Amino acid sequence: MERDFGGFKGVLIIGLGLIGGSIAVSLKKRGFKGKIYGFDLNLDRVNKAVEIGAVDKGFTDYSEVPWENIDLVIISTPVKTFTKIATDIKKYLKGKTLVTDVGSVKGDLVKQLEEILKPNIFIGGHPIAGTEKEGVENAVVDLFNGKKVILTIDHEDEFTQKLEKFWVDLGSKVEVMDPYLHDFVFAAVSHLPHAVAFSLVDTLIELSDEKNIDLFLYPGAGFKDFTRIAASSPTVWKDIFIQNKKEVLHTIDKFIESMNKLRDAVEKEEEEKLLNILYESRERRLSLD
Amino acid sequence: MERDFGGFKGVLIIGLGLIGGSIAVSLKKRGFKGKIYGFDLNLDRVNKAVEIGAVDKGFTDYSEVPWENIDLVIISTPVKTFTKIATDIKKYLKGKTLVTDVGSVKGDLVKQLEEILKPNIFIGGHPIAGTEKEGVENAVVDLFNGKKVILTIDHEDEFTQKLEKFWVDLGSKVEVMDPYLHDFVFAAVSHLPHAVAFSLVDTLIELSDEKNIDLFLYPGAGFKDFTRIAASSPTVWKDIFIQNKKEVLHTIDKFIESMNKLRDAVEKEEEEKLLNILYESRERRLSLD
Repeated sequence: MERDFGGFKGVLIIGLGLIGGSIAVSLKKRGFKGKIYGFDLNLDRVNKAVEIGAVDKGFTDYSEVPWENIDLVIISTPVKTFTKIATDIKKYLKGKTLVTDVGSVKGDLVKQLEEILKPNIFIGGHPIAGTEKEGVENAVVDLFNGKKVILTIDHEDEFTQKLEKFWVDLGSKVEVMDPYLHDFVFAAVSHLPHAVAFSLVDTLIELSDEKNIDLFLYPGAGFKDFTRIAASSPTVWKDIFIQNKKEVLHTIDKFIESMNKLRDAVEKEEEEKLLNILYESRERRLSLD
Repeated sequence: MERDFGGFKGVLIIGLGLIGGSIAVSLKKRGFKGKIYGFDLNLDRVNKAVEIGAVDKGFTDYSEVPWENIDLVIISTPVKTFTKIATDIKKYLKGKTLVTDVGSVKGDLVKQLEEILKPNIFIGGHPIAGTEKEGVENAVVDLFNGKKVILTIDHEDEFTQKLEKFWVDLGSKVEVMDPYLHDFVFAAVSHLPHAVAFSLVDTLIELSDEKNIDLFLYPGAGFKDFTRIAASSPTVWKDIFIQNKKEVLHTIDKFIESMNKLRDAVEKEEEEKLLNILYESRERRLSLD
């Protein structure tokens, strides 16, 4: 099928960070024929995005955006800002303009945005791609190629088909998921591991103080890989943890249960039980490769 | 200085696994002029080690080993077997033969081995190198090159100097450490991260059951790296956790405290507190790169 990115003619990317920037440069590289507009409250980011050719035109004021040319808005700011942005742009949207996002939290937020943006259509999106880096200057061409994108679609129509085609033409594998299930799944596979990585580094800081030795001088096998994601953006992750609080707390509680199960088996020297936990985890992990 | 590997003429490697095998192939590759003997209770492993040319001669029975030619014994079996091995080989050792090991746990074990092997000298060793793979067939040439080796030396003498030179000539950076401090340090930087990785995968198995969804189909950014070490050997790690029980439990308890600190900040939406934890961890982690 022709690579038409769902037939959108004008895309406005709100938030010129790593993800927004990567959408822009990937669209350009893959031959998107429409216009790409960028918006950010930070003028430096807008200038940078224009300078590197990611966007055709950039704005820091919604009233200056040529809304009549825009049929797709992609919100790619921290999730915390979404409802304010939706409220701010609502009055400018023309009838057929579709709004989507690339945030890591869905659930209630999707329902709120649907409500605020009515009669315009909002579809939640979450590309499972990223790096620890931030900013449009670190934008990666084809960041989404071969990666999953979750869309919170509950019924297929003209809009959802266009948005699916948009992501397919960026090389992504589209998967439709209920927004609440999305939050459970990504709390488990992404938010929890980040919380764990941050806490593990925090523990090593505390333990270093305890014995007055710099434990970070002894990064054992796997330790660097293991804590790499602890270098992720604190502001982004603070917001994700709080926005997806219910599921994040649930997965942390389950994880602490698992840690205590292993801890007790070690304390009681229950070798069989310990082996079972380790074998089961190992087998499941190996199945990923 | 000449690469003489401390002047040892005959090395016996007990335990032809990944580490023992890698010492053998690295010695060969770097021009060790002495003989390399291998011992393993498993005849297949011995045959494999001879077949790939890792060892000059292999044995499954201590009484057949040419002990008169051996001045260095390296125990590279699971830590659990160390005291039995020391007891078994004691009667064969000639006066000047030095015994060392490559185990991940030191502490009391070093004291026990020193006691058992008297009047021969035992020095605990721990090369900070490895892969998730097992067996002599996965031996890696120069596995120890550029890596740290911890030696539990409390005073310098002829023996310790020879052993230090042995490792230096394998390319390692020798660091002397008290055996109890060693166990604290590696509980924190290695044993705890392994416990966490196993528990994280265990949590995802439990959560998959809870919602009847296969969460392993959604390995988010960093998840694979993060849980890679959960594919490590269950028997090896069961033994390490139990052998280093005191420090492992202590570091797990500290880690659960850290997780609960983060959990509470999320629950109470204490944004500043949460940000502080994340920033501090991020900064410390970035300092590793």
